[in-house]
Amino acid sequence: MVRYTYEELTPGHGFQMPGATITEDAIIRFAMEWDYQPFHVDREKAKASLFGGLIASGIHTFAMAMRLCNEGGLFREPAVAGLGIDNLRWLEPLRPGSTITPYVTVRSCRVSQTKPGLGIVTWDIVVSDHEERTVLSFSVTNLVRRSDSVDAEPESPPVDRA
Amino acid sequence: MVRYTYEELTPGHGFQMPGATITEDAIIRFAMEWDYQPFHVDREKAKASLFGGLIASGIHTFAMAMRLCNEGGLFREPAVAGLGIDNLRWLEPLRPGSTITPYVTVRSCRVSQTKPGLGIVTWDIVVSDHEERTVLSFSVTNLVRRSDSVDAEPESPPVDRA
Repeated sequence: MVRYTYEELTPGHGFQMPGATITEDAIIRFAMEWDYQPFHVDREKAKASLFGGLIASGIHTFAMAMRLCNEGGLFREPAVAGLGIDNLRWLEPLRPGSTITPYVTVRSCRVSQTKPGLGIVTWDIVVSDHEERTVLSFSVTNLVRRSDSVDAEPESPPVDRA
Repeated sequence: MVRYTYEELTPGHGFQMPGATITEDAIIRFAMEWDYQPFHVDREKAKASLFGGLIASGIHTFAMAMRLCNEGGLFREPAVAGLGIDNLRWLEPLRPGSTITPYVTVRSCRVSQTKPGLGIVTWDIVVSDHEERTVLSFSVTNLVRRSDSVDAEPESPPVDRA
């Protein structure tokens, strides 16, 4: 479990996150609810599709990667909220039985202009499968509480467009 | 249900998608599985948090918006695959009982350099709540089959980094 303070983070600093395996059952169950497409929910139609077999919904892959980062401690205290996602690319189809692991690198850190008790941290996240192919990459920007301001909680929801 | 061909799309062209209401039950259920944070899963802890009450996971809001666009026909044929997401911003906390509706505008269309049977379409998606606040915005880039090439299916999975 990663533990960090805002002050410790520097661009280039990297964190290994835990991995997880995506099953056929999980792919179908997720897609039945969130992304109903033949190549996500129907093994036979998926065989006849461009992909030649079932592949995970890209929303599923993204949600799994975010969960693994949360489990790895990245989105726990001192992180307090998500602001956005940039440059998300689904680079390879993700098939049943694949194990994926995110690796996180600090892209940038700066103090919020509107809420000086908070830092704005952008993480570059590269998600690899068990054959070391990059299947997904994206950046997440979070609000992160500064250590020297633990008693100075912002009074309003920490939305920051700066 | 939106019906379109690649050839009909022009930048600025807009589509209204269907809406849906997010319930407290759905917020907690989603976050229990995908984004376990006190302000998404625990009504009492959420009250004491910066947000002053339960709010939806941003992953949930994004997944709902994508599902509504799929239900609205945007990601059906002739769309064949998603390439990526850009400039995603969670602009307002989404609370139980809110109804959200995506509005989609064509940002750009171009023919794939590597697979001329396919077009690359970027959609700007603005998700508003029932009080007409923008709660989420992002762009999605899709591969879209060109009408004049229905018989020219690409042989490999339609991943395109161009």
